[in-house]
Amino acid sequence: MASAFADIIDLLHMVPPGDEAAVAAVRERDRQLTKPPGSLGVLEGLVEFLARWQGKPSPTLDNPMVAIFAGNHGVTDQGVSAFPREVTAQMVANFTAGGAAISQICALHEINLRVFELALDLPTGDITREPAMDDRMCAATIAYGMEAIAGKPDLIAIGEMGIGNTTVAAALFAALYGGSGADWVGRGTGVDDAGLKRKADAVDRALALHREALGEPLAVLARLGGREIAAMLGAIIATRQQKVPVIVDGFVATAAAAIAHAVNPDAIAHCMFGHVSAETAHAKALAAMGVTPLLDLGMRLGEGSGAALAAVLAKTALHLHKNMATFSSAGVSGKDQP
Amino acid sequence: MASAFADIIDLLHMVPPGDEAAVAAVRERDRQLTKPPGSLGVLEGLVEFLARWQGKPSPTLDNPMVAIFAGNHGVTDQGVSAFPREVTAQMVANFTAGGAAISQICALHEINLRVFELALDLPTGDITREPAMDDRMCAATIAYGMEAIAGKPDLIAIGEMGIGNTTVAAALFAALYGGSGADWVGRGTGVDDAGLKRKADAVDRALALHREALGEPLAVLARLGGREIAAMLGAIIATRQQKVPVIVDGFVATAAAAIAHAVNPDAIAHCMFGHVSAETAHAKALAAMGVTPLLDLGMRLGEGSGAALAAVLAKTALHLHKNMATFSSAGVSGKDQP
Repeated sequence: MASAFADIIDLLHMVPPGDEAAVAAVRERDRQLTKPPGSLGVLEGLVEFLARWQGKPSPTLDNPMVAIFAGNHGVTDQGVSAFPREVTAQMVANFTAGGAAISQICALHEINLRVFELALDLPTGDITREPAMDDRMCAATIAYGMEAIAGKPDLIAIGEMGIGNTTVAAALFAALYGGSGADWVGRGTGVDDAGLKRKADAVDRALALHREALGEPLAVLARLGGREIAAMLGAIIATRQQKVPVIVDGFVATAAAAIAHAVNPDAIAHCMFGHVSAETAHAKALAAMGVTPLLDLGMRLGEGSGAALAAVLAKTALHLHKNMATFSSAGVSGKDQP
Repeated sequence: MASAFADIIDLLHMVPPGDEAAVAAVRERDRQLTKPPGSLGVLEGLVEFLARWQGKPSPTLDNPMVAIFAGNHGVTDQGVSAFPREVTAQMVANFTAGGAAISQICALHEINLRVFELALDLPTGDITREPAMDDRMCAATIAYGMEAIAGKPDLIAIGEMGIGNTTVAAALFAALYGGSGADWVGRGTGVDDAGLKRKADAVDRALALHREALGEPLAVLARLGGREIAAMLGAIIATRQQKVPVIVDGFVATAAAAIAHAVNPDAIAHCMFGHVSAETAHAKALAAMGVTPLLDLGMRLGEGSGAALAAVLAKTALHLHKNMATFSSAGVSGKDQP
């Protein structure tokens, strides 16, 4: 048991509960709004989710944030991506310049966007040949990720950018849930059949190389993961301690949540899953964790885009909860039947 | 064959095709945007949908509109709703005053809202005892619905309000697709088990009473439908002629589209279905028409709310299409592989 992770594991086990009194207050107001009870479906659940994990009977979305964590991966040497590694840094520049999809989702819907670059010029080790990181680097990166909430968001949508990282995420899922590379890889940014085979092979070789070390979930992360995944795990840990609800993006972001879940399933109770990605194995990973995604839009972009669209839904849901009329204020008759 | 419907049937058969050149132009720009091809999934399809049915290579959403059609129903005498009939008019007032869910969705996302009241103080006939409307009234109401696009929207989301209208919609689906009342009714605004049985019985009695007259789809609409459903059909007809794409809301709005589809399946090619409702039989109705809904949020409110959320998605999709950087403008490297 690597002592580098002792504090992190403690935090994952010592998770504060949700605020059920806040949820009850939300439900009480919801019952008075001019609509049949339950008729807003998932939107009602989103407001309860915000209340439960913010610990506020009147939840807020004054400062929602999309946080993108970007890292580079040695495994790109194995020809696992349709794009060259330098695209990671180029897209980080594009996020900031406003040219990326996530930039424009955030601009249109007034969501803050923060990008966390993780030593892009120092890719992690090629997992087919060596560990991605040593334990101390992994723990330090998790700690760095905890800083993502320094801007005091009241909701954080967690996403990533990293050429090669769907291969890394597939390796993590295979290590956590069993199966071989072929069970967990998909086309990512759009590899052809030969690229898909290279991805599966790379995962299989990585699993074989590190087999002895793949017991404890955080050791799995260090061996097979990536800096952006470690940092997303840090964000998931810090948000729970600081009462910030989380919306997790797609396949790669879900891998970070899966590490937390493997340590303690309750450690991700404050996380919603924004969408199910078109990356083939994402649905399987979500099912393995027993969670249900909000949206199914056939997206597979990463960069927090699916989580951001779910955050727009949360903004809408809260806006309705705060601004709709009540039966009494609007003079609308209630139900004839109980 | 009722001559009252001759012109309407002609319009449903003489539908202009989509503009595939406009779609090709959208796809050409999409290929240049800084994302893997296809990675925005349904969002890319939404922009193509706008281009195809607006007939514009550079589609617009400068004037999106939610149109709510409201009507009252004699069948409420059979105890089919959890709410009293006067709620229809009360909710119409609430839409305008800004207190309803749809009012606040439109306010937050800058979508115009128009409400079309259809003689609320003159409910249609109780379909368990008489026709809902005579053919001339039905044709006139369809014609009235065609006026919904007078405000020249570039997208219209079609919804409704009408206590009792899930019973009416269930009767229409049963007449079009077979089965009995129990196959098509659901809890609507929230009836209890006894109310659910009353709904199924009312549908069965209506089907039996009007059996001889249930051949031609527009005759079905007149016998079993409602004013708001006839008006929504009119809106669907006029939009196709005037190049306005449509997003159809839930169970009741889908019944209007089903009448058009039964006359000519191609007559609803310019319609997207915003969501699948929690009203039990909506998924079955969509499947019968061979269409796929955009969202699945467990909603069952009506008033255009599901269609409006889909319109927000369309606004987002078009904003990305217009404002994202291209690979060349952002200096992002393209794919390594074809």
